[in-house]
Amino acid sequence: MANDQPTALVTGVGPGLGAAICRRLAQESYNVAGMSRAGQADAVLEEALNRDGRRYQGVHCDVSDGGAVSRALEEVESTFGPVSVLVHNAGLFTSGPFDGTAPETFEAVWRTICLGAVNCTQCVIPGMLAAGRGVLLYTGATASVKAGGGFSAFASAKFALRGLAQSLAREYGPRGIHVAHIVIDGMIRGEAARDRFRATDEQCLTSDALAATYSHLIGQDRSAWTHELDVRPDIEKF
Amino acid sequence: MANDQPTALVTGVGPGLGAAICRRLAQESYNVAGMSRAGQADAVLEEALNRDGRRYQGVHCDVSDGGAVSRALEEVESTFGPVSVLVHNAGLFTSGPFDGTAPETFEAVWRTICLGAVNCTQCVIPGMLAAGRGVLLYTGATASVKAGGGFSAFASAKFALRGLAQSLAREYGPRGIHVAHIVIDGMIRGEAARDRFRATDEQCLTSDALAATYSHLIGQDRSAWTHELDVRPDIEKF
Amino acid sequence: MANDQPTALVTGVGPGLGAAICRRLAQESYNVAGMSRAGQADAVLEEALNRDGRRYQGVHCDVSDGGAVSRALEEVESTFGPVSVLVHNAGLFTSGPFDGTAPETFEAVWRTICLGAVNCTQCVIPGMLAAGRGVLLYTGATASVKAGGGFSAFASAKFALRGLAQSLAREYGPRGIHVAHIVIDGMIRGEAARDRFRATDEQCLTSDALAATYSHLIGQDRSAWTHELDVRPDIEKF
Amino acid sequence: MANDQPTALVTGVGPGLGAAICRRLAQESYNVAGMSRAGQADAVLEEALNRDGRRYQGVHCDVSDGGAVSRALEEVESTFGPVSVLVHNAGLFTSGPFDGTAPETFEAVWRTICLGAVNCTQCVIPGMLAAGRGVLLYTGATASVKAGGGFSAFASAKFALRGLAQSLAREYGPRGIHVAHIVIDGMIRGEAARDRFRATDEQCLTSDALAATYSHLIGQDRSAWTHELDVRPDIEKF
Repeated sequence: MANDQPTALVTGVGPGLGAAICRRLAQESYNVAGMSRAGQADAVLEEALNRDGRRYQGVHCDVSDGGAVSRALEEVESTFGPVSVLVHNAGLFTSGPFDGTAPETFEAVWRTICLGAVNCTQCVIPGMLAAGRGVLLYTGATASVKAGGGFSAFASAKFALRGLAQSLAREYGPRGIHVAHIVIDGMIRGEAARDRFRATDEQCLTSDALAATYSHLIGQDRSAWTHELDVRPDIEKF
Repeated sequence: MANDQPTALVTGVGPGLGAAICRRLAQESYNVAGMSRAGQADAVLEEALNRDGRRYQGVHCDVSDGGAVSRALEEVESTFGPVSVLVHNAGLFTSGPFDGTAPETFEAVWRTICLGAVNCTQCVIPGMLAAGRGVLLYTGATASVKAGGGFSAFASAKFALRGLAQSLAREYGPRGIHVAHIVIDGMIRGEAARDRFRATDEQCLTSDALAATYSHLIGQDRSAWTHELDVRPDIEKF
Repeated sequence: MANDQPTALVTGVGPGLGAAICRRLAQESYNVAGMSRAGQADAVLEEALNRDGRRYQGVHCDVSDGGAVSRALEEVESTFGPVSVLVHNAGLFTSGPFDGTAPETFEAVWRTICLGAVNCTQCVIPGMLAAGRGVLLYTGATASVKAGGGFSAFASAKFALRGLAQSLAREYGPRGIHVAHIVIDGMIRGEAARDRFRATDEQCLTSDALAATYSHLIGQDRSAWTHELDVRPDIEKF
Repeated sequence: MANDQPTALVTGVGPGLGAAICRRLAQESYNVAGMSRAGQADAVLEEALNRDGRRYQGVHCDVSDGGAVSRALEEVESTFGPVSVLVHNAGLFTSGPFDGTAPETFEAVWRTICLGAVNCTQCVIPGMLAAGRGVLLYTGATASVKAGGGFSAFASAKFALRGLAQSLAREYGPRGIHVAHIVIDGMIRGEAARDRFRATDEQCLTSDALAATYSHLIGQDRSAWTHELDVRPDIEKF
């Protein structure tokens, strides 16, 4: 049954940034629903966040499947009530030469990154419009603003998400909904960065530091909303 | 049978910009293949461009259908030889409130604008790489760089195309292929502008003027390639 | 005599944003030096911030006068110790047709906005480099990223400041100094907005909300620094 | 005495880009005035361009000196008549650590790059406004849009010039004056590139290729004006 606290929906909840945002928002007294395909971080988050009452709920679906997203949202709202903060953090990374990238890969990446954002946003927007308030945050990347060689599918999808977020900001800002796009310009500390990209810890952003900035955005007064910001480690070249 | 002239493939050939680019390139001694779904401008272009020998061929397919694009390209190449210039001009315009835009609309717009570019480019790139030269031009819009409220599907797809073009420029520039993205910041003179958007002629870009700039890009020396430029009428606010 | 708290230098301290940043930083236990030409907000800030010990000091100079800035900084450091946060907020607004704007006006605006930033930054950077840490914040405007007609002098100077900030971020980030540029996309609530520009309160940013975002930037962990963000009221068109 | 041809004023005429633009415009039947401090390319240009009648005139002044620019313009107009095309190409390059760059250097660079543009533009704009037509081109650089570390003075001045050009485009476009900003993203082939920066010819833009693009901009129809474009060699990373 819903308590009196506001509810946040976070997509792409794995062990990294998604989980950090969930923890941070729970500490700030949000009910937090974490969406993922496989729920790999759910046990840890439930253990940490549900000690003193229900704070965290994992829901499982593919964000690119509109019907599944819709059913997951019903589940969230029946537990926690309407969602007032959406963080679309789900992504699908790919790289490689353009002439070796199948059109199906372009489509899969776009469906998770951009269509997933469309699906989740369309589920929560009616409630936000009715309330006259709400926050929509979208996780971008270097490739959202600079499309490197070998990243045609990923960059194209991240550009699409940025365009979506910018359009939503202009459409919904005047109706009380704060839309922001966070350009994460670097790798996030974690196994993938370490094992797959051989990045040292110092070269990486930390999830907790990022979560602090997401939290600041969520708390901004409507007289001074940020639509876009970048974040990178001190030593990152840009 | 192929003559000795270079061949250009132009997509989205209707009576406006597409046809103007075809005419301009034919005047500059290109063989020109005009791709469209329905071939509505083919008769006029054939009449105008094929008087003194074969210059223009219309091919018909949906750019978002990779197999169909591939077959169309075979047809083109059997007539004219390998394509050295691709102008991806096909688009699909839509506007309206985000919460009234079906996910299917997002997908259809993205498939024509972005996936269509992927399909066409993947067909011509092997020949260009083998030749060590080629030109890839992509038609952008205001919404490629500024996503207005009410244009979430269109802007998101145009942003995606811009990201694609930028990535291709970085990947293929050093291999001799010139990639450019043209930001058309305004409406193009024609029936749609006049009847649907009530724009006066003075508020519109002319197709012939645009075609002159496309032609300049195609002719640029490899020591000074433009990747992106904007174009707008003198009186357009920006 | 210096206490153990860190010291911030804020330029352009009038009754609006400058004063709000001073108040906010003092609440967060910074010693705060407020630089202005005439010290118009000093009495109020001293009254509010110096009740329980010395927190605020007003220093007076023209930021475009390097020698005067240098002397003011010595005064600040003898009271509070080395500056670890600089907020360059001083500005000089002008507008009007280009052909009616004297070259001297271009120069005066550039000297306050850009050369003032150079002067203040050069005074504090040696101490920051020695400490291996520090924060440099620069106040931008709509005109920093979009140069409107009739704002040639102001926009040109604000573009210059943005270029300076971006270069400093790349030069000093890897040496531990966080450089950020805040694009204030709208008018700040206050007498000028109300009387001169006829803006309603709802159309304006509030100084306190802005100060909260400046404070967040100052507190960001070095693993996730923001270099640039925008801020605007919910109803602002952009 | 003035002939019937249109007149172009080009600033920063040394042996490289400036001279190439002069040659190109003279070939296109412009009267060309080349402004420089020392006139080092004048003899060659006079020899090449004045064979069949007066085409080229060198005028000498420091663009940052408004009075001198004004006198030079009178000289040009008494020979050739009113200027309808201005190409502001004068620059002053500097690089080095910010904390070792004197405020006087910031000022000198800004005065040549930005104030020089103001001075030259203010001299030609009344005639252009009276005629209801004209072209203003400004030469930018990588540093106009990306301020690298160690380029604080140069980038800051080039950003300022870009802001100026953008404001002028918005102010004067609707009055018939085409304003464009060319972002030269790389080094121009020549002695400086070779000897000072050890760049190979292949890494450099050629002046003649650039001049072709300047010429295209000058000739654009008012229904499709470009305000900004970039240019770089095929192999340039960006």
